[in-house]
Amino acid sequence: MIYTTTLNPSIDYIVKVLNFKEGETNRSHYEMKIPGGKGIMVSKLLNNLGINSHNIGFVGGFTGDFIEKSLKEIGIGTDFTKIKDDSRINVKLKTKIETEINAKGPKIRPEEENDFFGKIKNIKEDDLVVLSGSIPNSLSNDFYERIVVELNKKNIQFIIDTTGKKLLRVLKYKPFLIKPNKKELEDLFDVEVNSLEEIIIYGKKLLDLGAKNVIVSLGAQGAVFVNKFMSIYAPAIKGKLVNSVGAGDSMVGGFIFGIENELSVEESFKWAVASGTATAFSEDIGSRKFIEEMYSKVTLIKK
Amino acid sequence: MIYTTTLNPSIDYIVKVLNFKEGETNRSHYEMKIPGGKGIMVSKLLNNLGINSHNIGFVGGFTGDFIEKSLKEIGIGTDFTKIKDDSRINVKLKTKIETEINAKGPKIRPEEENDFFGKIKNIKEDDLVVLSGSIPNSLSNDFYERIVVELNKKNIQFIIDTTGKKLLRVLKYKPFLIKPNKKELEDLFDVEVNSLEEIIIYGKKLLDLGAKNVIVSLGAQGAVFVNKFMSIYAPAIKGKLVNSVGAGDSMVGGFIFGIENELSVEESFKWAVASGTATAFSEDIGSRKFIEEMYSKVTLIKK
Repeated sequence: MIYTTTLNPSIDYIVKVLNFKEGETNRSHYEMKIPGGKGIMVSKLLNNLGINSHNIGFVGGFTGDFIEKSLKEIGIGTDFTKIKDDSRINVKLKTKIETEINAKGPKIRPEEENDFFGKIKNIKEDDLVVLSGSIPNSLSNDFYERIVVELNKKNIQFIIDTTGKKLLRVLKYKPFLIKPNKKELEDLFDVEVNSLEEIIIYGKKLLDLGAKNVIVSLGAQGAVFVNKFMSIYAPAIKGKLVNSVGAGDSMVGGFIFGIENELSVEESFKWAVASGTATAFSEDIGSRKFIEEMYSKVTLIKK
Repeated sequence: MIYTTTLNPSIDYIVKVLNFKEGETNRSHYEMKIPGGKGIMVSKLLNNLGINSHNIGFVGGFTGDFIEKSLKEIGIGTDFTKIKDDSRINVKLKTKIETEINAKGPKIRPEEENDFFGKIKNIKEDDLVVLSGSIPNSLSNDFYERIVVELNKKNIQFIIDTTGKKLLRVLKYKPFLIKPNKKELEDLFDVEVNSLEEIIIYGKKLLDLGAKNVIVSLGAQGAVFVNKFMSIYAPAIKGKLVNSVGAGDSMVGGFIFGIENELSVEESFKWAVASGTATAFSEDIGSRKFIEEMYSKVTLIKK
């Protein structure tokens, strides 16, 4: 089983206002509510590609019920830890530009943490765990590390998509995949990278620190893959960016799709690029049909 | 029993952002969710003054469940019609200024309308019905009139707090109380009023059209009461405006409190002014203690 972790899921409340004015009473043109969070995005992508996954993390209150119900309705498994506080509502205000208002999120109580670790301890050796997204304020910064320590006891593979210190402190536990973007790569090493060659150099440093596979997403410049056997560059596929939310999570999902189908890492990287691109060019997470269309356009250049 | 009607209730999602920037990702400093809608505000004020009331209207989905549950938790009765669509979420963004983003609200289906009218038909002769707030888009503009026609069949008293044509078309059914503010009074007669004398003149025109009692709220200038026996002016009580939301609804609630306690209309008007003022000077609907404090400061000037 694949487990995706969303510690701080949300209802993303998308509100379109045609003529927004700060300080006034604005009327919405349309509204939409969807479950949000990076782990959930990975699960949605996998679901579109026909792969089952189970969401874990913390949900609470009537907002948490909505998140759980929405995922179940599209066929995604959930085994969230129920918390006392309400899951957060993030507002995505769409006017001529897009403005996000992200809520702080709920407090997680010690007994709720314990419940969550009970679920982590139930994960089996041949399962795969995806850790992505922010850590709620009330949890300690080493929360991902605490999860990874548990997973390592049973040699359970994990993928982690996070930034800065939270990423650095778990590299020694040998994540199966990490996926920094260019900016995150620069921040990790406090450098500026200006060429593919430099990206590959710093990607390889992440291998030295423990990562087994590294994808560096470069947005409109494409993506780079490195592991200890190869370095590959995939130039970006041309098209119109519709939505960058979930594109990185879709890359992670696409890579898992390849691995689950026992494809090579090169092939899995192709599915990662196709999935990320399909989502970036769609309103929501890319559909299977569109991902397949993008897949046919991916080219890989060995470096 | 007092029935308050909120046809289009909401979750008011209050989000404080210290340094809001349009077009960027903003992080909330705090969030709060409260049930919103004018009828609900009247019920909350009555509840603070120890008077029971029952909320009717339309609620749906997980957001509707929250609204209903929140009211029950503070001891307010509800007999809402359950609808298929979700009740709306209105965003109140508090930065240096306050910005409102009001959602369109749910679609009401014909069978849901029928259910609602079933409840209206159950209301008894000595009940009192408060009609206030906006009418959802999917209902016809004469919706209040259709309710009032039903109430009139059993001589059930009603108070209506609405604007323009929706108000004008029900005056002939003799509302017990209406409560336009100065701007609404001017709009109703397409005039500009510049003195208390003129306000009283146009207030009396509303009596001629059918209203039994009229309160004209004048904000920082106080309030005027007229019925066929008297005209009274209550100057504003000095203090710091904290929140104008619900102040008008609190006036309605305060007036009902007086009537329910068999006080005179002058006394009831004093409670209306005290209640409206207490709410205007509070973060939420005024508390009993604060209303009583304001009550001691109300002065009435017969005109």
